[in-house]
Amino acid sequence: MSGEREARLQQLGYDLSKVASPKAKYALLKQTGNLLFSSGALPLDGENHCSPGKVPTEVSAETAAQMAALCAANILRAVYAEYGSLDKIKQVVKVNGYVNSAADFPNQHLVINGASELLLAVLGEPGTHSRAAVGVAMLPLNACVEVEILFELAD
Amino acid sequence: MSGEREARLQQLGYDLSKVASPKAKYALLKQTGNLLFSSGALPLDGENHCSPGKVPTEVSAETAAQMAALCAANILRAVYAEYGSLDKIKQVVKVNGYVNSAADFPNQHLVINGASELLLAVLGEPGTHSRAAVGVAMLPLNACVEVEILFELAD
Amino acid sequence: MSGEREARLQQLGYDLSKVASPKAKYALLKQTGNLLFSSGALPLDGENHCSPGKVPTEVSAETAAQMAALCAANILRAVYAEYGSLDKIKQVVKVNGYVNSAADFPNQHLVINGASELLLAVLGEPGTHSRAAVGVAMLPLNACVEVEILFELAD
Repeated sequence: MSGEREARLQQLGYDLSKVASPKAKYALLKQTGNLLFSSGALPLDGENHCSPGKVPTEVSAETAAQMAALCAANILRAVYAEYGSLDKIKQVVKVNGYVNSAADFPNQHLVINGASELLLAVLGEPGTHSRAAVGVAMLPLNACVEVEILFELAD
Repeated sequence: MSGEREARLQQLGYDLSKVASPKAKYALLKQTGNLLFSSGALPLDGENHCSPGKVPTEVSAETAAQMAALCAANILRAVYAEYGSLDKIKQVVKVNGYVNSAADFPNQHLVINGASELLLAVLGEPGTHSRAAVGVAMLPLNACVEVEILFELAD
Repeated sequence: MSGEREARLQQLGYDLSKVASPKAKYALLKQTGNLLFSSGALPLDGENHCSPGKVPTEVSAETAAQMAALCAANILRAVYAEYGSLDKIKQVVKVNGYVNSAADFPNQHLVINGASELLLAVLGEPGTHSRAAVGVAMLPLNACVEVEILFELAD
């Protein structure tokens, strides 16, 4: 039903209007056919950069998981801004998550669960997805995590 | 002909029934239209995690290439479990491979060849694919390699 | 109009004929439907490997951005070699950029702008794209940057 997904996102604390602007020469979203590819989203709250640093030495794994959820919320906000509704999302297809990792941190999958759980909480069954999580040497702006999402849109 | 791909995979030593369960909140596979996106697969033999560690300091490049093949085999096993046949695969489209790399190891492409060669051995010409191989700071569970595959399915 | 994109690429200094051969068991490009997935391209000038090393300790961020542009040019060269024209490109959908990063380098997005700006210069509006930029521990052949591109092709 119309508005349910938006209501759930807001109930989780993510104001729909806080869309972070691109930080470089790219678009937040690009559609081809009924596939919608997001850019890599950073943990920005509006224009405020949250919890930068390496996991777990500078940012705990628990905080990084919350930041992964914020990345996913930012992508949903961008979809809402572009299409006027989250009901345009038929399903999530794929999530790729990158964690700014200390060399001995083996729990990237638990950090990226933050994004996956947000998608499931907001979208329900259509939020299930395939996923890859990796630990990278560094991220733009020293972000602790970056998430990108591939959606299938409704016709 | 039906069963040939499955027979080749088994002749290479990969029992079809050993499907590794997801290690976090994701699905092993997600289909959209005739595209099938796998999750990042780890070098698991059933539930046994094989050869964890950094390449080449803790795991040799040769062993890591075998582990990349195991990752690809795990994805083929998941496809078989989902569709009941590997004949559903029209072609491999893309492989992304991530190698848990020491900072001076420049042969990620040779490690990921292990996955590419397995796909070619099992699928023949439809196994040819585009590919990206990179060296990451760390992987979930300290895996030495992680591989994800995009397939095109037959109608 | 026919030939304009090719002329712009050449005016920027990228000879159309310099297609780098694959460095391992993969194809430079793979098409499924009207989607065209490139492999990860390295900063090769023909077979000459340009500016290897970590950013910014061995290769400056400015040089790395030029190398990201070279990666994107190599992908366009491969598209031209495959289809005989860059007019076959309806639009760029997605760019993924990997920067061989020192552990404290936070400007991967500025490096990958080199690739994005080349695509916009050659293709104009259809060159706009979603994008992810990350900093990796190492790349094949110690390349300073690797870029992959997803295109939508014209029917």
